[in-house]
Amino acid sequence: MSQYFADLQPITFEGRDSTNPLAFRHYDATAMLGDRTMAEHLRFAVCYWHNFVWDGSDPFGGQTFDRPWFPADTMDQARQKADAAFEMFRILGVPYFCFHDHDVRPEGDTLAESHERLNEIADYFEQKMEDGGQKLLWGTANMFSNRRYMSGAATNPDPDVFAYCASTVKACMDVTHRLHGENYVLWGGREGYESLLNTDLDRELEQMGRFLSMVVEYKHKIGFKGAILIEPKPQEPTKHQYDYDVATVYGFLKRFGLEDEVKVNVEQGHAILAGHSFEHELAMARTLGIFGSIDMNRNDYQSGWDTDQFPNSPGEAALAYYEVLRAGGFTTGGTNFDAKLRRQSLDAEDLIAAHVGGMDICARGLISAHAMIEDDALEGPRRVRYAGWEGEAAQAMLAKGATLDGIAADAEARDVNPQPVSGAQEKLENIVNRYL
Amino acid sequence: MSQYFADLQPITFEGRDSTNPLAFRHYDATAMLGDRTMAEHLRFAVCYWHNFVWDGSDPFGGQTFDRPWFPADTMDQARQKADAAFEMFRILGVPYFCFHDHDVRPEGDTLAESHERLNEIADYFEQKMEDGGQKLLWGTANMFSNRRYMSGAATNPDPDVFAYCASTVKACMDVTHRLHGENYVLWGGREGYESLLNTDLDRELEQMGRFLSMVVEYKHKIGFKGAILIEPKPQEPTKHQYDYDVATVYGFLKRFGLEDEVKVNVEQGHAILAGHSFEHELAMARTLGIFGSIDMNRNDYQSGWDTDQFPNSPGEAALAYYEVLRAGGFTTGGTNFDAKLRRQSLDAEDLIAAHVGGMDICARGLISAHAMIEDDALEGPRRVRYAGWEGEAAQAMLAKGATLDGIAADAEARDVNPQPVSGAQEKLENIVNRYL
Amino acid sequence: MSQYFADLQPITFEGRDSTNPLAFRHYDATAMLGDRTMAEHLRFAVCYWHNFVWDGSDPFGGQTFDRPWFPADTMDQARQKADAAFEMFRILGVPYFCFHDHDVRPEGDTLAESHERLNEIADYFEQKMEDGGQKLLWGTANMFSNRRYMSGAATNPDPDVFAYCASTVKACMDVTHRLHGENYVLWGGREGYESLLNTDLDRELEQMGRFLSMVVEYKHKIGFKGAILIEPKPQEPTKHQYDYDVATVYGFLKRFGLEDEVKVNVEQGHAILAGHSFEHELAMARTLGIFGSIDMNRNDYQSGWDTDQFPNSPGEAALAYYEVLRAGGFTTGGTNFDAKLRRQSLDAEDLIAAHVGGMDICARGLISAHAMIEDDALEGPRRVRYAGWEGEAAQAMLAKGATLDGIAADAEARDVNPQPVSGAQEKLENIVNRYL
Amino acid sequence: MSQYFADLQPITFEGRDSTNPLAFRHYDATAMLGDRTMAEHLRFAVCYWHNFVWDGSDPFGGQTFDRPWFPADTMDQARQKADAAFEMFRILGVPYFCFHDHDVRPEGDTLAESHERLNEIADYFEQKMEDGGQKLLWGTANMFSNRRYMSGAATNPDPDVFAYCASTVKACMDVTHRLHGENYVLWGGREGYESLLNTDLDRELEQMGRFLSMVVEYKHKIGFKGAILIEPKPQEPTKHQYDYDVATVYGFLKRFGLEDEVKVNVEQGHAILAGHSFEHELAMARTLGIFGSIDMNRNDYQSGWDTDQFPNSPGEAALAYYEVLRAGGFTTGGTNFDAKLRRQSLDAEDLIAAHVGGMDICARGLISAHAMIEDDALEGPRRVRYAGWEGEAAQAMLAKGATLDGIAADAEARDVNPQPVSGAQEKLENIVNRYL
Repeated sequence: MSQYFADLQPITFEGRDSTNPLAFRHYDATAMLGDRTMAEHLRFAVCYWHNFVWDGSDPFGGQTFDRPWFPADTMDQARQKADAAFEMFRILGVPYFCFHDHDVRPEGDTLAESHERLNEIADYFEQKMEDGGQKLLWGTANMFSNRRYMSGAATNPDPDVFAYCASTVKACMDVTHRLHGENYVLWGGREGYESLLNTDLDRELEQMGRFLSMVVEYKHKIGFKGAILIEPKPQEPTKHQYDYDVATVYGFLKRFGLEDEVKVNVEQGHAILAGHSFEHELAMARTLGIFGSIDMNRNDYQSGWDTDQFPNSPGEAALAYYEVLRAGGFTTGGTNFDAKLRRQSLDAEDLIAAHVGGMDICARGLISAHAMIEDDALEGPRRVRYAGWEGEAAQAMLAKGATLDGIAADAEARDVNPQPVSGAQEKLENIVNRYL
Repeated sequence: MSQYFADLQPITFEGRDSTNPLAFRHYDATAMLGDRTMAEHLRFAVCYWHNFVWDGSDPFGGQTFDRPWFPADTMDQARQKADAAFEMFRILGVPYFCFHDHDVRPEGDTLAESHERLNEIADYFEQKMEDGGQKLLWGTANMFSNRRYMSGAATNPDPDVFAYCASTVKACMDVTHRLHGENYVLWGGREGYESLLNTDLDRELEQMGRFLSMVVEYKHKIGFKGAILIEPKPQEPTKHQYDYDVATVYGFLKRFGLEDEVKVNVEQGHAILAGHSFEHELAMARTLGIFGSIDMNRNDYQSGWDTDQFPNSPGEAALAYYEVLRAGGFTTGGTNFDAKLRRQSLDAEDLIAAHVGGMDICARGLISAHAMIEDDALEGPRRVRYAGWEGEAAQAMLAKGATLDGIAADAEARDVNPQPVSGAQEKLENIVNRYL
Repeated sequence: MSQYFADLQPITFEGRDSTNPLAFRHYDATAMLGDRTMAEHLRFAVCYWHNFVWDGSDPFGGQTFDRPWFPADTMDQARQKADAAFEMFRILGVPYFCFHDHDVRPEGDTLAESHERLNEIADYFEQKMEDGGQKLLWGTANMFSNRRYMSGAATNPDPDVFAYCASTVKACMDVTHRLHGENYVLWGGREGYESLLNTDLDRELEQMGRFLSMVVEYKHKIGFKGAILIEPKPQEPTKHQYDYDVATVYGFLKRFGLEDEVKVNVEQGHAILAGHSFEHELAMARTLGIFGSIDMNRNDYQSGWDTDQFPNSPGEAALAYYEVLRAGGFTTGGTNFDAKLRRQSLDAEDLIAAHVGGMDICARGLISAHAMIEDDALEGPRRVRYAGWEGEAAQAMLAKGATLDGIAADAEARDVNPQPVSGAQEKLENIVNRYL
Repeated sequence: MSQYFADLQPITFEGRDSTNPLAFRHYDATAMLGDRTMAEHLRFAVCYWHNFVWDGSDPFGGQTFDRPWFPADTMDQARQKADAAFEMFRILGVPYFCFHDHDVRPEGDTLAESHERLNEIADYFEQKMEDGGQKLLWGTANMFSNRRYMSGAATNPDPDVFAYCASTVKACMDVTHRLHGENYVLWGGREGYESLLNTDLDRELEQMGRFLSMVVEYKHKIGFKGAILIEPKPQEPTKHQYDYDVATVYGFLKRFGLEDEVKVNVEQGHAILAGHSFEHELAMARTLGIFGSIDMNRNDYQSGWDTDQFPNSPGEAALAYYEVLRAGGFTTGGTNFDAKLRRQSLDAEDLIAAHVGGMDICARGLISAHAMIEDDALEGPRRVRYAGWEGEAAQAMLAKGATLDGIAADAEARDVNPQPVSGAQEKLENIVNRYL
């Protein structure tokens, strides 16, 4: 058991009036909202990378965090890291966690050694999961940090990198499957380009499509029942990331016939970098039938890079969970905090406090969202606005057999002269604010 | 004949050393580049709206331009406007023009009257086209300026607006067909949303898909041989435009089974607003098989709205036409200047000078692009970079029957350890600069 | 008395649990917060331009609003507009309003006639202000809409425009003085440039400095006791606005020796366009000693133009009023809603509801801010963080006489080896959220 | 002598038609442009940090570059690094270089040891500079990479960090002075804030002002004749950098009475992040009398972080050097390449080729700029545009004694009615293109 968090006790729910910085004010895991508990709605996960791997460095400065398991280049340190991680999961009371292969074990000298180490640490996890009851929300492979991936993973100009990736993803899927992971995620870290001048766009997209198809086939082969998820991001690290946003991923899936096999893991920060609100991306995923899971964080709207901050806007959380609820809530997915401390937040307690704040914001957003749905506060006005389309003649225009010239003739015959009706946006915004 | 351009004479090619501001220095219409003349490569079009309709107003100020045909709310003024337009086409020597219904005639009191007026002005155009030899690159319908479209056109909550649009598009397609237009364009001016709160995303996308399907059917019904083009734009006027970028449009087309029927008209300014380079959008359109035409302009990278300025970067033009040439050049498409004067550029001569400069930049870009292709300057290094993929074993990994575990096993057996190779981006950038 | 708002009744405070969309839930004008009422803290003003002048047009579409006083090109319509305006002030119970000359009367054929009309409408206002008890927060001149200003006002290349502006500003200052306005504002609508190529930067900044100096002198001459305020904005309508942000305005004032004479009117939307948070600009104004007043609205972080939306973020409002309170609260300044309806919000009731929502958000933010100050919730930790600087040796380093080499020698002698301390940003963010 | 660049020969000028990727096509060091050689105009410098320190890592991946002197944590490796650096200066034929203390020697265990090592490497440089004839354009201190600076350098909440900085800057100024550096630069790496919540803005700005004042005093004390330069940057690494842009730095200097003592080192990439064009920042520096030097690179307009790419736009370079020439050319300043390879550009040859391309772009820009000035191509039209201000009456309006009401009375008496004149922006843009 890790001593890293020293005497920090498991966080408990104390209610809105609590001023204890290490208590939940909104997240009451077992409280019911509709037919699910808050824990079942939110399905919180803590990520391994930002919390236990990142050392506080940024492009202008080096390590700021002192973690006893650094530099984590031995298996002993990997276990020490795992001890701290599971200790943190326990303190926070989160049911799930997520990891990359690279987060949990030092890379070996060969592919085979890397996989062995991954399996060894998976054994260690298995025991801890059994002891603590935590589950794996998703596993994934880090195919962007090592220099071998500098020109892409599956989209690399070197076919050996493609082969290396196949081996790596297979190993990570195997481990995810063994640990009963509920999803397997692909984030295309370097699947994109720095410069069109040295990029064969056609070829790279083909490689990526082929790779994903094989991932899906392999999932079925091993009987993995979880979802395969792609995480859209528009740029950074590359100038252009192929999985730009939800709509782009959808087009890609359709092109390769994978739209029923793969869903999306939507991240607030990535949505913002793509010029979208988080709720837009969630609504789009729902509409296109590919909603899977969320990476919860926030991005600074005015910093042009991926800031991965802990969420702190009750309003944004409410609108996000509103779309999650409209999508029917999570099935295999959940709320993973892909959020990192600011590099000046040095203390173990900062790790806990940041998650407590983030979990509370999510809970607060969920409560607001659930109430708005219960009250028909937004759906009522929305139905009224589109009510005209429920009429028979209107429906006929959308039905098979309707023609442009047929509708045109009718419009001219009726000399239609549509009169605008207020969109009432401010009133709706006021309604949302009533629920925050 | 219009007196608006007074004594301005047709612009001629004088060569690079000319200092005449009203002469072409690069655009030599009949000069051959490969197997086409420059005119055939570029297929220049002048647009009606920015040149003859816009009055110089912006969100903070009113009209600055005095045009004798303003306010253009009579048919006489519409004809006066047409006289000036065709006079300008003649002076510039452009082979094509483009227009919206709204640009060329005042709207009538009824749909029927609007269509009559459109047909009346089309008669007038027909005669002028015969006289001057100009052709119609594309026609389109303005379904965003009138208040009836404030909440969308085909995506409007009011089905009567949908019907109104059907009538309008039919009329515009008929006129485009009659005038032998080579394309018909849809730009979704208000097809998008201001606020998700009052928007039914699912329903609106369905409406849009249905509408486009009927447009395609109608095209075939009337025997229109031109291409149907969608023009992507990410935002403005709406907060989110449904036709966000090329990849989004592709996904939309796939969803409604229209990817073989509809292509894209890509605009530099819209690409930039979407966070892409122009050449990215062109390359993506080529890769996805939906490249159609271009709207040439430039956007200020640091102004967050659509500035629609005349192009003035030789480098950007070179990279854009490079992608056009890689796509096989234009078929039905062309280079339409969707560019407007700055509102302080009051004079008739400014209209001419701006186009002369823009045409020259395009010609200069085309010349550079053509030379780079002739010299294999970029394609050579690109082939080398991906040469590994030409090998049999590499090809097998992409072929049917390859499996993730099969490739993984092989990679592990070979203990692949891929070594990165320089991407040489700076050298390639230097090569491009050698051609500018 | 205007019938425009028909049977809408004055808005009253009903408390947090009210679901009445036309009631205040947070703004209780006479409730005390510390030693001031909420009304005294907030000093709400309604602006004339967005509410009574703007017709709903945007760069892609024309008028959407039907207001009975449009097109407001007669004095009768100007009075009808004023009737509606004061009716709205009454319904909302706001103590202040703001206007440009251009908003309140049609321009005359000559300068003299324009001024006469302004004075005539001022008479009309005077009576209404006496009747209703409303006061003028500030007056200003619109020197950007008319085409004469297309190349700038005081910075125009044509000295006659400079002279025209002098006459206009004098007239507006006179009227503001007569109506007991508490401030006079200058927003440099077109004081900036579209292109450096045709701009004489040196000269234009000199013109602007000279003009402002004369404005200040004239203020003293007529005994106007209000503040002269500059409103920073980085861009739009011009590519570069000279009053870019608070820091830029400060440098400009220092350059012309006006830093004790002129303060800033800070707008949320302009702050965001400049890449700053609103609270940054407010804190900077306080630090530099030039805090004056605020234009409250919000900008869409992802739309690159000035969206001037009604504020709707409780958190942003809290942080903004926190800085206002730290600056000592408003003296001559206040909270002016420089916010406009979305162009689809057609109804008179939308005007009221939008302001009710905005006022409530401000009140809510103020209440949170006030409580955080009362509780020393943020200032306590801040003092601790910088406590080291209170020591004598530390103070000596900042005092006159300290030298770089002296401090260096001491540091080397002590072999200082400073150890970082957590910045605890997430904990502080959690604290703020406890107050929302 | 370093073997790192193996058999690469000194780069020579071969003229525009050369296709040799390792030859200058535009930069002919000894060719005269006006009264200076190109070398004297451009005063090229190579920077130490990007070329010899950075290992190719980015926020999503580690080292990609293999340099024989890595990890450079011994003095031997520091000398090996210097060998390679001076070898590169020799191959490129650049007259200048620039460095941070941190770039050239490993930090010691104590301040004293760090300074000793710095002096030791300075000895090594001295010999090399004598041998090769290179000179030091500027020295500077890295006060942002080490974790001690995580919360700022001179603006740190801990006064010991302030003291540490004093010692560090003194040591770097001493070394710069000894090596006859022509400038000393301060870039405020972490002088700014991540969150206003934990920042005492007033205090930090005071600390920064005091620190800079002592730097200036120390400069005079030791008789350093070079310029003290501040390098503006708006954000990154911090959310808000205090030296936001040129105008902000000017205000800061005025506030502390340092505007005659300190100038700016303007970087293209930083200008762009601040929402400005490079030429804007240069023109502003000239106008405000604080133009010093330039950091030449380019930023991707669509990546929101500091990309520090090699310049490759002839047009941007022309407009930048145009402003340099209008400012009278460089005095102590020069053209430092603060540009780094893309992380996929692994080879020693990439380092050379990137600089060759960059130097050529600068030379090309300079040639264009010089010709535009010789031809009065832009200044002629500019003078005409503002000619009205040369009249006596116009001058009187700007002179002492002019009053707002006096000018107003005259304007009204004359009933001025200014008529706009075309700004002709497109024509001017066409002119610039003629020179590219």
